[in-house]
This record gives sequence, C-alpha cells and structure tokens, in this order.
Amino acid sequence: MDGSVEQTRQTYQGWDEFYNKNVDEKLAFFEVNGRLFDIIFAQQFDRPFMDYLCKIADMIRLLAQTKMGQEKLRHLLPHKRAMLYFVQPSTRTFLSFQNACYILGLSVSESRGTSTSSEVKGESSEDTIRTFASYVDLIICRHSEAGFAEKTAWVLNQTERPVPILNGGSGPDQHPTQALLDIYTLERSFQDIGGLDGKKIAMVGDLKRGRTVRSLSYLMKNYNDMTLYFVSPDIFRMKDDIKDFLKKHNIAYYETEDFESVMPLVDAIYMTRIQKEYSDDPSSEADTYPGFHFKKKHLSIIQPHCTIMHPLPRRYEIEVEVDKDPRAAYWRQERNGMWIRAALIAYVFGVEQEVSKEFL
Amino acid sequence: MDGSVEQTRQTYQGWDEFYNKNVDEKLAFFEVNGRLFDIIFAQQFDRPFMDYLCKIADMIRLLAQTKMGQEKLRHLLPHKRAMLYFVQPSTRTFLSFQNACYILGLSVSESRGTSTSSEVKGESSEDTIRTFASYVDLIICRHSEAGFAEKTAWVLNQTERPVPILNGGSGPDQHPTQALLDIYTLERSFQDIGGLDGKKIAMVGDLKRGRTVRSLSYLMKNYNDMTLYFVSPDIFRMKDDIKDFLKKHNIAYYETEDFESVMPLVDAIYMTRIQKEYSDDPSSEADTYPGFHFKKKHLSIIQPHCTIMHPLPRRYEIEVEVDKDPRAAYWRQERNGMWIRAALIAYVFGVEQEVSKEFL
Amino acid sequence: MDGSVEQTRQTYQGWDEFYNKNVDEKLAFFEVNGRLFDIIFAQQFDRPFMDYLCKIADMIRLLAQTKMGQEKLRHLLPHKRAMLYFVQPSTRTFLSFQNACYILGLSVSESRGTSTSSEVKGESSEDTIRTFASYVDLIICRHSEAGFAEKTAWVLNQTERPVPILNGGSGPDQHPTQALLDIYTLERSFQDIGGLDGKKIAMVGDLKRGRTVRSLSYLMKNYNDMTLYFVSPDIFRMKDDIKDFLKKHNIAYYETEDFESVMPLVDAIYMTRIQKEYSDDPSSEADTYPGFHFKKKHLSIIQPHCTIMHPLPRRYEIEVEVDKDPRAAYWRQERNGMWIRAALIAYVFGVEQEVSKEFL
Repeated sequence: MDGSVEQTRQTYQGWDEFYNKNVDEKLAFFEVNGRLFDIIFAQQFDRPFMDYLCKIADMIRLLAQTKMGQEKLRHLLPHKRAMLYFVQPSTRTFLSFQNACYILGLSVSESRGTSTSSEVKGESSEDTIRTFASYVDLIICRHSEAGFAEKTAWVLNQTERPVPILNGGSGPDQHPTQALLDIYTLERSFQDIGGLDGKKIAMVGDLKRGRTVRSLSYLMKNYNDMTLYFVSPDIFRMKDDIKDFLKKHNIAYYETEDFESVMPLVDAIYMTRIQKEYSDDPSSEADTYPGFHFKKKHLSIIQPHCTIMHPLPRRYEIEVEVDKDPRAAYWRQERNGMWIRAALIAYVFGVEQEVSKEFL
Repeated sequence: MDGSVEQTRQTYQGWDEFYNKNVDEKLAFFEVNGRLFDIIFAQQFDRPFMDYLCKIADMIRLLAQTKMGQEKLRHLLPHKRAMLYFVQPSTRTFLSFQNACYILGLSVSESRGTSTSSEVKGESSEDTIRTFASYVDLIICRHSEAGFAEKTAWVLNQTERPVPILNGGSGPDQHPTQALLDIYTLERSFQDIGGLDGKKIAMVGDLKRGRTVRSLSYLMKNYNDMTLYFVSPDIFRMKDDIKDFLKKHNIAYYETEDFESVMPLVDAIYMTRIQKEYSDDPSSEADTYPGFHFKKKHLSIIQPHCTIMHPLPRRYEIEVEVDKDPRAAYWRQERNGMWIRAALIAYVFGVEQEVSKEFL
Repeated sequence: MDGSVEQTRQTYQGWDEFYNKNVDEKLAFFEVNGRLFDIIFAQQFDRPFMDYLCKIADMIRLLAQTKMGQEKLRHLLPHKRAMLYFVQPSTRTFLSFQNACYILGLSVSESRGTSTSSEVKGESSEDTIRTFASYVDLIICRHSEAGFAEKTAWVLNQTERPVPILNGGSGPDQHPTQALLDIYTLERSFQDIGGLDGKKIAMVGDLKRGRTVRSLSYLMKNYNDMTLYFVSPDIFRMKDDIKDFLKKHNIAYYETEDFESVMPLVDAIYMTRIQKEYSDDPSSEADTYPGFHFKKKHLSIIQPHCTIMHPLPRRYEIEVEVDKDPRAAYWRQERNGMWIRAALIAYVFGVEQEVSKEFL
C-alpha cells in the first residue's frame, strides 16, 4: 500500500509542478514538429498563425457557399472522429464546434452534462479522458475548472495514444477559440480599411471577470499601434495583470466610466455582460448598470465604420433594435466562430493546405 | 432606459398583432416565391401539395429499398445541417425527423429537454433561435407552447439569415407533419380502391383535446364526399369550431357514443388515446373508457378493407392482439412519418425534383 | 374486457415460457439461415465464429490505418441506421459501439437515460422497441434488467419488421460483446506464442458478481488445455454454476486467496473491480481488498509475456504506474472493443466478406 500512495503522490506532483510553470515555458509541450498539437491557451497564437488561420477560415466560408465546395470540405476529414466533452454546458460553443466538425466531415460523439457514468463508478478523470482517446481522434472539452483542458492534454501526451485537445473554455481564464473568433471578426470588419493594426477598441462591461476581453487584450500585443478603452464601473475595472502586460508591450489604454464619451472615438466596441456583483440573475435592466449598455440612440454617435461586438448571450447590454444596423456584428461574430473553428480543426489534422489548394 | 422599454414593447406588439391574425392572412408570410418556406400550420397544405408530397414520399421509400437508391438519397442534402430543437420531449417525432434527415444525408445537431444553458443565462428565446440559425440550415422544433414554431419563424424571417422552420408540434393545436403522415397513410391504404375521396372515417376517443383528429378534420375539406363519424364519450365530444368548419365546407359528420354500431360502416378507424378527465396516468383499462377501445373481437365486425390507425403511443385503446391483423396500419403509419418527413425536407430545400428524376 | 385481460396474459405466458428455457434451446430463435441474427448471449459464439470475427476485426483495424482504407469501411454500411438504446448508462460501451458504427458509415440515433418520453406516457416497452425498429436497421441496447435484450429480440422477431438486436449488457449476467473483446485481446496478446490454446489465466477480484469473468469462463470450453486460477477473497469466490460447467468440460481450475503465489505461473491476469460487500463507493484503497490489487512491484514477479487485463473502469485494483509497462493491455483491450464491435456489426449485416476481399 505504501508504494501505491507514494506513486500516486508523485504523479500529482508532476502535474502540479508543470501547472505552476509560466505559460511561455509550457508551450513547447503542446507542439509537435513545430506545429500546435493541442490548443489550450490564447498565448499559443502568434501573428503569423492568426493571419494564416483567418485566411483558411475565409476560404472555408467561400467553399461552403456551393454544394461542390461543401463536398470538398466534407472529404477532408471523414476518416476522423471527434468527441465533444462538455462538462460545463454551453449550447453556443457546443453547436459551433459540432457544426465545424460536420463541415469537415468528422463524426461526432458527445458527453454533455456534469458527470459520466464512469465518474459515478469512481473512475479518475485521467482514465475517463484516456477512454475517450481510445475511440476518437480529437477531444474538444469544456469545463468550469481552470486548467482542465491543460491537464487533459498533459495526461494524454504521456500515453501511447495522444490525440489533440481543443480547449472549448476551461474555468475563468482560458477560452482560446473565442479569442480567435474575436480576432477573425475584427479583421473581417476592417478588411477594407487596412485590417486590425492601428485601430481603437472600446471594451465595455465587467472587465474584471470577463474572460473574452482579457484574452483579447493579451492578443493585442501581436498588432501594431492599438489603443484600448476600458469602459466599466469602478468595481469591475480591468485587473492589474492585464494593465501591466499592456504597459510592458507599449499598448496604449485608457480607463473610464463614461461610455458615451468614448463612442465617437473608436473603431470597434466590444460589449460584455454585466450585472450587480451579487445578482446572478438580473430581473431588470436596472440590475445591470444601464450606463454601460449600447442603445439604439447611440447608433448616431458612433463612427460609420464602427463595429459592435458581443460574445453572446446578451441580456440587456445591447438593445434588440440595434441588431438591424449593419454595424452590429455580433450575429456575424457568432457564425465566424464556426468558420474559424473549422479552420482550426483542419489545421490540427494538417489538412488546411488542401483547403488553400482549391484556390490555386 | 425609456427608449429600451418602449422598443421592447413595440417588438412584442408586432408579434401579438401578427399572432392574432386569421391563419389565412398569415400564410404568405411563410412562403417564398410561391413555395412553402416554413411549415407551421396544417392549413398550409392544399390538395395538390399533399398529393405531390405523397408521391415524393413513395419514391423516397422505393429508392431506400436498395443501397444504390439510398446512396442517391444521401447525396441530395449532405451539404445541409439540421437542428432538432425539442423543448418538449417526444421520442417518436424526434427519431422520425432525425432519421428522415439521415436518409437525405443531412448532419443533425440536437437540443432536447426543457432548457438550454443560454436560457439559464437569461438569453431571450428569440436570441437562442437566432443562434441556432447561425450554425444550421434548418430548424425542426417542438414545444409545449402554442405558437412557438410560428414565433420562431416570424423572428427569423425578419433577420438576414432566415432558415426554414419545421413545426414538430407546438402546443395543443398544431402538429402539421402528423397530419401529413395521417393523410399519407390513408392514401396508401386506399390506393387500390380509388384513394381517399369518398371514404368514411371514424375518429374515436378524446376528440375534444385530440390534436391529431382535429387537424385531420380540417384537412378533409381538400377531399371530396368525405363522411366523418365522431365516436367519443359525451364529455370528450369534438368541439364546435371543427363542427362549424365541416358544416361550412359541406362535409358530413355524425356523432355517437356507440362505437360498435359505427365499425361496420367505415373505411378507416382513427383511434386516439383517452383517459378520465382527471386521471393523467390510468393504471387500469377501466380508467380509459373501455367502450371506446378496439379489441380483437372487433376484427370480425369491420370491413375487409378497413384500415385501423393510431398516432401512438397507445395505452389500452387497441389490444396488442390486433397488431397482427393486416388491417392494423398504425405501425406502418409510424414509419410513414419518416418517409413523408423526408419528402417534406427534400421539398423545403427544393431538391424533391431530383428524387422524381430517378424515376424518368 | 375479459378478452383483453386473457390475451395479455397469454402473451406474457409466451415470453415467460420462452425465457425459462435452457439457453441452448433458444439459440435457433436468434438465427436466420444459419447465421446469428441477434447477439444476445455469449453462448452463441463457438470457436469458428470467434476465430472468424477476430480475423475480421484485425482487417478492419488495418484498413483504418489509412484514409483510403477508412473510406472503404465507411462505404460498407452508409445506408444503414443504428439506434443506441442505453437505459442503463455506460459511457465506455456507448462510445465504443457508436464509434464502431461511425467506422462502418452508419448513422446513429440515441436514447440515453432511464426513461423515454413515451414511457412517461405509459407506452409498453414492447411498443417502444417496435417504434425504434420503425426508424432504424439495428438496435443496440443496454439495460440493468436481466433478459431485457433477449425480450426485445423475442418481441421484434415476431413482427413484420424485425431488426437485429445487439446486447450491450443486460443485467448481471450477459454482456456478450465484452466477452468477445476479451477473447480478441487474449488472442492478439498470444499471437506470437500459439494463440489462446493451452494458456493459464488468473481471474482476480469479485468473481461472485463479476459478469466479465463469468462469461470468459464459459467461453473457455472453446479452447484447448486451458487452466484457470480464481483469485478472490473467500466471500467473493466463483459460484458453483461456473465451477460445475468447467468440471463438465474438463477445464482445470484452482482457487486461492494468495494472489502473489499465482502471479509467476500465468500467461494472463484478468483483474476486476472489487469492493467490500456493503460499500458501493469505496473512498479508500483499504475498502477494496488491497491484497487483490496489482501493483507496480508485481511487474518483476510476472512472466515477461504475461498480459494484464481489466474491463475498466478501474478504481484501486491496478496502480496507475503499471500503465506504462508493455504488458499492461487494458487500454488496448478497451480499444479492441471498438474493432471487434465493428466486426460484429459488419457480420450482422452480412458485409464482413467485403472487408476480407480487400486483402485478396
């Protein structure tokens, strides 16, 4: 028995030691032959990668407009099988990934909800993941715990049958494919005015807890001459770690509680959900800081090219009447998630060049 | 804030105004270029449409008998993706639609159960539907609320990305594909004796609350010289709205509590579930008005060509021993649901002529 | 009403009469034209069948290594649709069957969890099964009740539309595809040393209640010169029915509580879950009879070719550190389940010869 306990402890020490390393030190562990193998952190994406992936996503979107093009796409990965392991439910991310798989022809198994039957029988989460890896070629997981996707990839990469892990959101900090679709949407919105470089972006709402605005802020270091405006109530201000990061990379940022003053200045407004700190379920707009909402009347204040984004779901942050304005990009942004995830899956299996070959 | 509240109210007024219109006035809203776009009401089906769809269903059924024919079918819509959004569970309708999709090659996503994670986060049902429409090309929905499918289609038809909505049952009144499969089954049963025109049909059971018999009664106006026999306990008699409709269209009907007296007269007997008004879960046959059941002994009373139908699931209404009689059509009727739904989906995407081309 | 009650009783008598027959007398009922139609009992498998199926599984595994080979496989059964009806949840068996279906191109519908909506409405389980059979070509079911799969097949085989039933585990005794994958794993482990004939196998843990070791013991009659070692605490000894069976077929077996004394003797060790009789959820290794666990230190005691198996999920029975030893076969064993199930499905639809044709 002593042996057992000791060895179990060693394994856990191994993980803890790895987990507590700086992200930059870990990146190589999730790569194979100079390509990303697992997609765990937004920090894995550099500028060339994001530019490349956006180009692939554009080509997939174009091919998908014809039956023949869709046929090409479905013949890229019909021999691969994916597992959607969503311990924390998320209809939007789930459907987006599932349909991205379908576009490329993958078969999909799913486990949704908080527990599998094996967990009920006392199986370790490492064994559950190895079981999934026995049957499929790709695992896309979502979990409320920070580090879940990372640990999953760490476990599998030490077995004889590692399969790529895509992080569909784990805990409060990482949701790398959301960051990708935000960048993709910004790039598309600005494609006729020089792309994302040099643009001014307002991030609005609960910046303290907002995973999407935090990730997006990190990725700004890959772009030139960016300016950020953090618009939030005082108690939801962007945390110091992000602000220190921006200072270090010479990215200009401003903080304010006056949303309307910022509106005319920016090229993009990134809205996020916001609610009173102790009100999980706001029953009225008044519970959600209406000064940080975007209303129909604001459409006359913002620039003609200003793009309005939101990771969705929304509650009261954006009035429904705004939807019909061509600058409202959030529904396109949602659909972009499917295209960029399809591009990512094609990349992970190394078939993304077959997409671009169609355009030679 | 005032603006917001006002605008929200306007939107809801728009829907309420639409919803309260007469069905006939609404039909054009669910059509595009003279073809049905959304399938919401049984009232959308006229005689030519039903005859046409039955013909397509027959051809799909025939093609599906060979591997090569099935291959043809699966290549009709492999580039399309459907969403089954079943807020009210229904194993039968769900499987029927899902396998209809598979037959035509569509990929299928599903949301079953009473709530999505986004609804938990307070998203409006309009936004949830728009999200589904972002990822798929067709939404099939089922809901316990009257008007749900209609509202869904109404919302989407005002967006940039409307996708067809198929109503898989919403609330107490509408279940248009059930009506289609009933007509299809009747037409097939009578194909050697002149089709449905001129036939006598008994409808038996809880006619007051029975959605299927109500829809079927409406559709009778498309057929010539029909006679209906409404067989029910007094408290479950067919409601006046249907009887008024039949009178207006000169369709003969009789009402009786004496099931056995009607049996020898009719060409079809449409059985439905029945239970004591305050007994949701009848634990014995006695709770379910045994005088309105079809028993093995009745097989000698009915006509040799009389067809016995039931929308299923059944409880005590039809004895299991009846199943083996060739006139028992309810299991075929159930399977007909899959074929007619496949025909409908082919029609909605405008590829149903490719099916008939196989028979030139 | 008398008629109804009487006839219902007759039907149930029919089933009870059938169910209580000896297994050998029932086998013909699940065959068509000399081939297995439904897969219900491990007793349906004889030596030629198992050898044949292992060969098919090997070929499927080999084909699956290339995109072109997988394409061949997916074109075997794309015109077939399967239903996974898992009333008792089992992530492992579910995923294994589902991905076996995907490999051969089948579409898959699923019903997981303890009840369908129709059961809620009071439908009989016979009617529910007939409904599934209306829409699909194959039903794979799992249930906590003994005899469930058997009854399902018995019901359908009396209808106009029988579809094959695969038993994915029903109750305490039968899980025939688990038995198949165990045999397949043993055969593969011993392929360079003369196959399974003549080998010594230790079965360890709760042998009294262990479904897998009981089935495997039965199948030993198909192999020559086998020796079994039953290693368990006294209260979990193998039951007399199995021991009588082994005696009848002249298969040598020994019983012991001394696991370590057996380790150096055997060619395979089949570990199973074990826990104190009244502790459903062991919270520590001490609750699980540590003397019947396999630990890292034991790797030096067993033979160089000894294969270590476990049906999974495991709890404390095998130390995680053992996983990296090449003799640890349980993860391969799990994946073998997918290959042998794909072979079985190909066999059931009579296309397994198309697999072997690829190797001519």
